Amino acid sequence: MTKATAEARANIALIKYWGQSDPRLNLPLTSSISMTVDKLVTRTTVEPDASLKADTLSINGVAQAGAPLARAQRHLDRLRQRAGSAAFCRVASENTFAASAGLASSASAFAALTVAGFAALGAKVSEREMTTFARLGSGSAARSIHGGFVEWRAGPTHEASYAEPLAPASHLDLHDVVVVLSEGEKKVGSSEGHGLAETSPLNAGRVARVPALLAEVREGILHRDIKKLGRAAQEDALLMHAVMMTSTPSLLYWTPGTVAGLHAVRRWREEGLMVYATIDAGPNLHLLCAGRDAPEAARRAREELAPAALLDNAPGEGARLVAAHLF
Amino acid sequence: MTKATAEARANIALIKYWGQSDPRLNLPLTSSISMTVDKLVTRTTVEPDASLKADTLSINGVAQAGAPLARAQRHLDRLRQRAGSAAFCRVASENTFAASAGLASSASAFAALTVAGFAALGAKVSEREMTTFARLGSGSAARSIHGGFVEWRAGPTHEASYAEPLAPASHLDLHDVVVVLSEGEKKVGSSEGHGLAETSPLNAGRVARVPALLAEVREGILHRDIKKLGRAAQEDALLMHAVMMTSTPSLLYWTPGTVAGLHAVRRWREEGLMVYATIDAGPNLHLLCAGRDAPEAARRAREELAPAALLDNAPGEGARLVAAHLF
Repeated sequence: MTKATAEARANIALIKYWGQSDPRLNLPLTSSISMTVDKLVTRTTVEPDASLKADTLSINGVAQAGAPLARAQRHLDRLRQRAGSAAFCRVASENTFAASAGLASSASAFAALTVAGFAALGAKVSEREMTTFARLGSGSAARSIHGGFVEWRAGPTHEASYAEPLAPASHLDLHDVVVVLSEGEKKVGSSEGHGLAETSPLNAGRVARVPALLAEVREGILHRDIKKLGRAAQEDALLMHAVMMTSTPSLLYWTPGTVAGLHAVRRWREEGLMVYATIDAGPNLHLLCAGRDAPEAARRAREELAPAALLDNAPGEGARLVAAHLF
Repeated sequence: MTKATAEARANIALIKYWGQSDPRLNLPLTSSISMTVDKLVTRTTVEPDASLKADTLSINGVAQAGAPLARAQRHLDRLRQRAGSAAFCRVASENTFAASAGLASSASAFAALTVAGFAALGAKVSEREMTTFARLGSGSAARSIHGGFVEWRAGPTHEASYAEPLAPASHLDLHDVVVVLSEGEKKVGSSEGHGLAETSPLNAGRVARVPALLAEVREGILHRDIKKLGRAAQEDALLMHAVMMTSTPSLLYWTPGTVAGLHAVRRWREEGLMVYATIDAGPNLHLLCAGRDAPEAARRAREELAPAALLDNAPGEGARLVAAHLF
């Protein structure tokens, strides 16, 4: 066994993951497509220690208990079972961004934990299998195993629900300018929210529409057509939030700033700036645009939307081991 | 022929009219239920005049041309055909509220025009037929023919698509506190918007859900259960706006104030004030609550939502002839 450190990056879904066909395995109702981003990084060290009676977890230097610890422990149990190991681990994780603010920190967290955990426990698994284990920790973590543009195939089984690269980060200079409108914690996290998707009378309509939108985003990526992928991504984000706000209970993640941003983005596009908006399970806007337009999009967002923070992401690399020491 | 004056009131839909099976006849995709309100009044005088070469229209004292005049003329053509008359008319209409701000002025306008027009042209038509003719002018005008609580049955034909009373205004002291967030004109009026409903992948889901919501609102009215009808009305409003924002083009009628209001209403309910929100094709919030709670709902809205105007409506009377003079 080794002490292993891995880095993984968050991803922004262009076609969203919302709703599950199997909550136990995090099998999604639809396939999804994302871009791994470069500036939302989780760095996680896993250190097996025979003297431990249970796994421990610190996040940004703060020892965790309760639900976050239990969730990490459950994930380590899965990794141990696959690795044929019984060793408890000391886990230390650092994020470059606020957790639970809709910046998809669980994706980078479980991607990093999976890569570091398997390395620390001495299991050799393929990249594809790595994505399926990351998925068991947090669905969208499957996508953060890969860099650039990634599709997570819904799949009917654990093995068939894996993520695969569509194009590397260097293929298309799409940016994700994150307009942080709130760094507060969400009332209903996305893990709970997934279970509500099918309570919306509109969910089946979204699920039926997604295959066409997936095809448009794939084509947009392939042909470097940001307009095509941006339109499809924006439509899908509105579909997801429509499902959310009409579920029982109703999930209204939007704030006044979110709506101001949606109107502003439309106006900017009418004024000739090719920018589209997507929104995860939170209030923040993600502005999708070409890298050359990102400074202008960020400038307008700063002037007109009074964000708490702004983050201009380029396509980022996949999860990788940055250190592994035998001990 | 006579000079005739009629008054009609706007209505707030508890289950919305959105989308048409026949745009020419304004046949809706679903039935709808509304409450006629007491404070949004249109008063219209129709005066046939053998010396006129064409119909004329004034609204709030201002002579109209272009689209508003043409729409009134088309409606008068229908009334003339039914009445067996060829007389052009002088029409003068007064509203107690701003037109085209999502306060459903076309409902009261076409209800008043239909009642005054038939009286002026000397046609005797039943109340049911009156609602079908009001519908040809503006779909929701069918509901404003009746006072109190009204259902407009979708109907497969002109004759079968009529409105009928569910309960008189005196049956239930439901209030509609209108929180006016914008008095500006809408970019896309609801007449155009109806044609977009079926471009949304979510429309079929709403249409399938509406019968159950209609039943809940009917029961809520019958049993004076404001909680039951309020929940159903609020769900339906979110369903309609979900359809609107996911149509092509996307109709985002909400402003930041709309979302602030939706969050506020949820908070007020958690704090024990039984109030629900509905939203027409515009940004304004309509707070549905018992009459005894309306002053408190209005007070909170004034303090927290910075409205441009507030209007506390009780259930109102149906359209009626207020003067008819032989000449």
